[in-house]
Amino acid sequence: MKVLSGYLEVEPKEEVPGVVMREVITSDDGAPNFTMRVFEVRPGSSTPSHSHPWEHEVYVISGKGVVKGKQGEREIGPESVVFMPVDEHHCFISLGPDPLRFVCVIPSQGFCAVKPEGEES
Amino acid sequence: MKVLSGYLEVEPKEEVPGVVMREVITSDDGAPNFTMRVFEVRPGSSTPSHSHPWEHEVYVISGKGVVKGKQGEREIGPESVVFMPVDEHHCFISLGPDPLRFVCVIPSQGFCAVKPEGEES
Repeated sequence: MKVLSGYLEVEPKEEVPGVVMREVITSDDGAPNFTMRVFEVRPGSSTPSHSHPWEHEVYVISGKGVVKGKQGEREIGPESVVFMPVDEHHCFISLGPDPLRFVCVIPSQGFCAVKPEGEES
Repeated sequence: MKVLSGYLEVEPKEEVPGVVMREVITSDDGAPNFTMRVFEVRPGSSTPSHSHPWEHEVYVISGKGVVKGKQGEREIGPESVVFMPVDEHHCFISLGPDPLRFVCVIPSQGFCAVKPEGEES
């Protein structure tokens, strides 16, 4: 069992200006399937606008923002939940006044995607 | 893309008294690898004390509690993070005065666990 009293104990990474990420649970902890990160996006900043062959499952902790996806834009705030499918172009924008903070879970490398029923592998 | 303005939009399940669960992202949404749930544990209540062949990755939203695992008990609160490995006996206890609320992610059925480097499949 690994317990962090607070996610701030984890070293932050800021690969994109204004977007601070902490990898709070990873394969280094023995997590076999997926990785949990906590993001803090500064007001006025945005995560990269991109797509990739893995999904995001997101829980918004605090702050206000907008998530952009294939179908357009949706406002998000505390307690919002976002599922971003594989290969969908997306970004998360922080509107402020407080940072947009969210939990974001992604599959670890080497995962095997289970196709929903009815789809071919 | 699926967006819930708030996780409360999802129908709750209370299979264990005092433990309300909402499955906020599942394979029904097209999520291929893991399922996100949001739990609310009433003060004085606890999740079942058990083990199972899948892991938990947990982010604590609010409230105060205790997580019990193989190595003993740890206090948890807002912004705490818990990784519970496969087959480790565990439970989450809500101390109050407010409900213990947390995000809990588990692998979906049929997943392929990626072993950490150095271990055999």
